[in-house]
Amino acid sequence: MRIRADWRASVALVGTVLKYLSIPLVIPLVVALIYTEPVFPFLATIALTIAVGHGLEQLRPDPDLQVREAMLFVAISWLAVAMIGAVPYVIAGWGTESTLAHPVNALFESMSGFTTTGATVLGSISLEDHSHAIMMWRQLTQWLGGMGIIVLMVAILPELAVSGAQLVESEAPGPQLQKLTPRIAETARILWLVYFAFTVVYIAILYGFHLAGMADNMTLYNAIAHGFTTLPTGGFSPEADSVAAFSAIVQWTAIPFMIIAGTNFALFWHVFSGDGHRFVRNSEFRAYISAIAGLTVLLAGILYTGAAPPLGDLGGVTAGVFENSLRQSAFQIVSLLTSTGYATSDFADWSSTGQIVLLFAMLVGGCAGSTGGGVKVVRWLIVFKVLRRELFTASHPEVVRPIRLGGNIVDEDAIRGVLGFSFMYLVIFALATLVIALDVSRVAAIEEFTALEAFSASLATIGNIGPGFGFLGPFGNYNDFPIPSKLLMVFLMWIGRLEIIPVLVMFTGGFWTR
Amino acid sequence: MRIRADWRASVALVGTVLKYLSIPLVIPLVVALIYTEPVFPFLATIALTIAVGHGLEQLRPDPDLQVREAMLFVAISWLAVAMIGAVPYVIAGWGTESTLAHPVNALFESMSGFTTTGATVLGSISLEDHSHAIMMWRQLTQWLGGMGIIVLMVAILPELAVSGAQLVESEAPGPQLQKLTPRIAETARILWLVYFAFTVVYIAILYGFHLAGMADNMTLYNAIAHGFTTLPTGGFSPEADSVAAFSAIVQWTAIPFMIIAGTNFALFWHVFSGDGHRFVRNSEFRAYISAIAGLTVLLAGILYTGAAPPLGDLGGVTAGVFENSLRQSAFQIVSLLTSTGYATSDFADWSSTGQIVLLFAMLVGGCAGSTGGGVKVVRWLIVFKVLRRELFTASHPEVVRPIRLGGNIVDEDAIRGVLGFSFMYLVIFALATLVIALDVSRVAAIEEFTALEAFSASLATIGNIGPGFGFLGPFGNYNDFPIPSKLLMVFLMWIGRLEIIPVLVMFTGGFWTR
Ligand SMILES: [K+]
Ligand SMILES: [K+]
Repeated sequence: MRIRADWRASVALVGTVLKYLSIPLVIPLVVALIYTEPVFPFLATIALTIAVGHGLEQLRPDPDLQVREAMLFVAISWLAVAMIGAVPYVIAGWGTESTLAHPVNALFESMSGFTTTGATVLGSISLEDHSHAIMMWRQLTQWLGGMGIIVLMVAILPELAVSGAQLVESEAPGPQLQKLTPRIAETARILWLVYFAFTVVYIAILYGFHLAGMADNMTLYNAIAHGFTTLPTGGFSPEADSVAAFSAIVQWTAIPFMIIAGTNFALFWHVFSGDGHRFVRNSEFRAYISAIAGLTVLLAGILYTGAAPPLGDLGGVTAGVFENSLRQSAFQIVSLLTSTGYATSDFADWSSTGQIVLLFAMLVGGCAGSTGGGVKVVRWLIVFKVLRRELFTASHPEVVRPIRLGGNIVDEDAIRGVLGFSFMYLVIFALATLVIALDVSRVAAIEEFTALEAFSASLATIGNIGPGFGFLGPFGNYNDFPIPSKLLMVFLMWIGRLEIIPVLVMFTGGFWTR
Repeated sequence: MRIRADWRASVALVGTVLKYLSIPLVIPLVVALIYTEPVFPFLATIALTIAVGHGLEQLRPDPDLQVREAMLFVAISWLAVAMIGAVPYVIAGWGTESTLAHPVNALFESMSGFTTTGATVLGSISLEDHSHAIMMWRQLTQWLGGMGIIVLMVAILPELAVSGAQLVESEAPGPQLQKLTPRIAETARILWLVYFAFTVVYIAILYGFHLAGMADNMTLYNAIAHGFTTLPTGGFSPEADSVAAFSAIVQWTAIPFMIIAGTNFALFWHVFSGDGHRFVRNSEFRAYISAIAGLTVLLAGILYTGAAPPLGDLGGVTAGVFENSLRQSAFQIVSLLTSTGYATSDFADWSSTGQIVLLFAMLVGGCAGSTGGGVKVVRWLIVFKVLRRELFTASHPEVVRPIRLGGNIVDEDAIRGVLGFSFMYLVIFALATLVIALDVSRVAAIEEFTALEAFSASLATIGNIGPGFGFLGPFGNYNDFPIPSKLLMVFLMWIGRLEIIPVLVMFTGGFWTR
């Protein structure tokens, strides 16, 4: 059996990625120096990632990757980076009470970071139990993950034409969507600039509120920490109370920035090039905004009329309070629809009806070409157009009707890719729910475990959302799950983030041999 | 705006169906005479259905229906029959405590019967509060519904080529699948013979157990009543405890007959024609049996190891009891997978993990061309083949791969129909869950209502299953829902039973005008 995929070329390029990982590792190192905290976890990891990266690069560098090699490169990159990223957690946690001292937990937290999921197994989210440097590394992993996703979504996946990712192109062709490498570098640089600019503006606004006395606890540290996790739709926070820890104006400000994070980044490039009309003409963006608006109004009504139970300490009362109903609703819908996962109140305690509305938001996902996870708006758009066509052709079998998106006819192959992806997503999600339930019931480690937790764990990880329902709510924790479930969730975060197919093909025989 | 669909022809044919409905209405009339109970509800309904049927027939009889007219005929038939079928409930309930005195409840119960769903709003399931005749009518509606479904599935829908129903033909071409009417009559007669024969054999076996002293309460009345609801995968029972009311041997006997009910009826015709190999060669049947076997073993393990909580009075203890674990598991898996809905213990009280396994069974559905509801095995088979193909073509974009079923290449249009149908099913199910939750929270009529009930109500009605989870378990009741939710569920049972598209197209403008 001859292996036909040129895995050496892929792995060599992963080596390059690992070498680059040493640069951002300097940031937590600097934080450690500022706060006079241990620097060893970061020094050791920098040395490790350079050594491993350099070693892998020796294999056979060949920057001209074919389709299979590109998929292999993408899949291995995220896994390798997550593994290296777990090292500081293990070293820093060594000999302490930290749950992250266990390698599986550290890998979970690191994968959750680099996939911008935001699910946590950190026992106590507190700067008293963990160093400022480690907590900042945790935030930074999400920002780095976001950088990776932007390249992946706008430059790599559309070229691979899997999962219907080529649709990104059909409506909003990016700056220079051309052959894989070296043009990727150009595209990436432009979009990273957009990403970087929004992050800086966001941090400046947050810290501005602090300086203006409107957000006491939004220190520079917190402003940067949240800047690192908003644009990548990450959702990690060094505050145990997430965004509920901050004043109303901070919560209002986060909403538009989460919306930006869930938007196709290529569109911003067009705005900066003077072609702002693209936004209005982009049917995915219109559907995205409509979904946010519709669900927000619906949920605000539920919260205002008090159909949701009175909120606890966090978030305050909404029944009869217009501003808070609208804020809690808009914040939570945007946070879950874009797969960010921040919370301003414990929605796991809301009424069932409110939670069902949130579940709808979770299933939507961000726009294609954004850092948002989930099925994605454009796929739903295609699905609904396909359903409308099926209804029409049922009574008009003689009519051939192409499906259009933004005026262009969508290729039937891309449509099949979209339907296939969406089904694969649902099937894997359902099977994972079953496996997690079986695993938990096997060890009976978790009291009062219900189907809701199995369902939440599966959806929140494959959708890269982070929080779910039941004890996996926004202030909940994944630490109680047994090891096999945690490893399964690591897998779910990984495949969910990479649009499933580039990872899953590796597990088919045909990928390697034919 | 000119109406292009020849609705008069469709409605005229519905009139003929209504006239025929007067014949089976004689059965509860005879039961009433035997037990000296009121005959007026049935006499009045017979008169009504003949009158209405005769009136409609005057419109414009034209037995040569086109595609649209056939869909219209199918959709209106079920609605009209359900409405007429509700009349005996209303008349008999008039002035009594019966919940069926309310027309919406009566329509719900009648639609639940004729769609073989088995969800009930009957306040007390007891022969003390209701006459033997009314309770037998309730059972009979399911048997009649099953007759309608057989014609629909094997003779009408494949011709309409919607929802991928033409797949029934590709693997197991029926006796005489040809143009719509009058050949339908031939096909129907052959398959009805199969249906009738199995029903008679089943009743004989059940009553035989009674005569042999192995099933005390399986009187002739009960044997016939359950004979009427097993082959149509109906699930109604005049016993409040469903099949849990009977001895283990009765429960074991029901299992193979439910499996038969979920099998493509065209296959039996081939067996009786001497071509029994078709069973083994039929890939849908193999998948169906494999799914049943796999889920049964998994659930039996859960019940045997006691991961499910100790069962209550009904069903007995399973932990450590091999026979009961296997029986409860096999019975419940078969009952829910085929969408029958009988129960031998209250699975709504089982552990979450056990319930998730049951949920998988519910989602599978019966075989195409059977009386079973849900998505159906053949569609899942196609979905999985499509997913495998997507994975393969992701790394081999140059290869064109047709999808095969039973050796034949499946038309890409049929595949699109299958994917479209399955998505439509999931989308309608999700939206209905939301609407039911909003409706219930609006009136706050039901205490302790959770997302589980909204989810169950939606799935159990669109899938024509009957029971769900929470307070909608097998011994639960749909009576507590507000009127709008009940009407929505009537709609769900209707569209679920008719494979969605024939009903839904009526609500598109293009159906009538273009
Ligand atoms: K997230
Ligand atoms: K049923």
